[in-house]
Amino acid sequence: MINIPTVAIQGERGSYGEEAAALLLKGNIHIHSCEHFKEVFQLTVNKEVHYCVVPIENSLSGSIHKNYDLMLRHRLNIVRETNLQIKHNLIIVPGTSFKEIKTVISHPVALDQCEKFFERFPQLTKRSAYDTSGSVKWITEQKLQDHAAIAGKQAAEYYGGEILMTGIEDNEENFTRFFLLSCDREIDKDAGKTSIVFSFRNTPGALFKCLGVFALRDLDLTKIESRPIHGRPWEYLFYLDFIGNIEEEKTQNALNHLKEIAEFLEVLGCYSRDTTHPEKGM
Amino acid sequence: MINIPTVAIQGERGSYGEEAAALLLKGNIHIHSCEHFKEVFQLTVNKEVHYCVVPIENSLSGSIHKNYDLMLRHRLNIVRETNLQIKHNLIIVPGTSFKEIKTVISHPVALDQCEKFFERFPQLTKRSAYDTSGSVKWITEQKLQDHAAIAGKQAAEYYGGEILMTGIEDNEENFTRFFLLSCDREIDKDAGKTSIVFSFRNTPGALFKCLGVFALRDLDLTKIESRPIHGRPWEYLFYLDFIGNIEEEKTQNALNHLKEIAEFLEVLGCYSRDTTHPEKGM
Repeated sequence: MINIPTVAIQGERGSYGEEAAALLLKGNIHIHSCEHFKEVFQLTVNKEVHYCVVPIENSLSGSIHKNYDLMLRHRLNIVRETNLQIKHNLIIVPGTSFKEIKTVISHPVALDQCEKFFERFPQLTKRSAYDTSGSVKWITEQKLQDHAAIAGKQAAEYYGGEILMTGIEDNEENFTRFFLLSCDREIDKDAGKTSIVFSFRNTPGALFKCLGVFALRDLDLTKIESRPIHGRPWEYLFYLDFIGNIEEEKTQNALNHLKEIAEFLEVLGCYSRDTTHPEKGM
Repeated sequence: MINIPTVAIQGERGSYGEEAAALLLKGNIHIHSCEHFKEVFQLTVNKEVHYCVVPIENSLSGSIHKNYDLMLRHRLNIVRETNLQIKHNLIIVPGTSFKEIKTVISHPVALDQCEKFFERFPQLTKRSAYDTSGSVKWITEQKLQDHAAIAGKQAAEYYGGEILMTGIEDNEENFTRFFLLSCDREIDKDAGKTSIVFSFRNTPGALFKCLGVFALRDLDLTKIESRPIHGRPWEYLFYLDFIGNIEEEKTQNALNHLKEIAEFLEVLGCYSRDTTHPEKGM
């Protein structure tokens, strides 16, 4: 018997999250769509789904900090990453003409990423929704001929919408990194990247020393992100990604060294890099 | 003739932004309230107002990244900072009883910060608005007896709302740092903190070297924040705050050293620290 994994995503079917899930798990999957990220994480922790797929960073709008917070709170493990290229489309109810459109609906981040499109067509009113694909679902189900939605082409296919214009984003270097998360730690054979989170008591030079444990061992960082610690104003948790497998001696030495300085350290996952649009170390 | 400065803020009169502006400029000010931050920055750049006051970081929800992006895009200078303690109140139309309230309206961040309050009273529906004080204005003007708003006490005073409950936030260690921004560089005599932004070509160890210019001179960092560079996926701008006056030799040496490594470096301001709720160096 083949075991088809169930994957929780935020947003309706046909979303960028579903596209990412298909890339991350190649082959058959069941999608469980949730309205809120909180629910996505909760289902995974409760083992009601095998995995969840969440966006963690966009190359234009930056990190999705809420998901960093949720990942730590629920102690989930990063199993894999993928950098999905985001191509926004103007999607309509089939048969609508461009002249009829008065309102364009989508997720606020997608609307922001198409600012030049809205400057070109000032007659269009923007309207925020909680989801890109959900917007397509809504206009097609309601047959709203004076509305269009902005979403990926999968959403148009899923709900029978028509793509009127494609690539309407301001900047085509638009990628979103998604994580495949699980309750259990799974490390692929070729895992080459590690994500950690740590904090330290604020003392002069502490952050420099923390980064030193990597730099002094020629371990390249690819990302650093700070988040506030609740109840300790102006103190931070640091999320760090670096190139290295936690089973290598050099990496273990670096993490042991970091434990000498940090007051808290957790490995979030060790996984294969998406090398189609890779980062350069820093 | 006394020159009363005009200060642009986002949100309606009586907001936390107005409270911060009063703290930052002690004495008489004219408030110019704007719907969006974009407009706040634009008015300041065009010198239609003397200053603007914007929130840059909250000790619970983290940085307001949009304002980091806008500050750089408009090349404004940080003149002063203040850490405002946020005390959320449940505000009603006078004469309303708690039992009548069905909907509570406020800015989404304020609603999120009162999660335990909503768990205690599950009969209440949350509704997002673009502004805390604007929510009070709306319920009092419309005399909505089945609504309450969450906002600061200034908003209740300004619009004649009644405070029914006070301190309804989950975590009382709730501070928002506001910046006073100007077109012109103004450096107070006792300025002890400097904010910069820089980027570098990603090469192994580059960030460690950048932090080294401070650590090797015993200059304490108080904050580091990364933001994506548009058009260069997975490369970042770094915003850094450190304890030091740019007119001191040690600080100048550090910044000259940083120029050797960075491909871009800008000083955003040198200003007095708010020492009522100060950060510890790291």
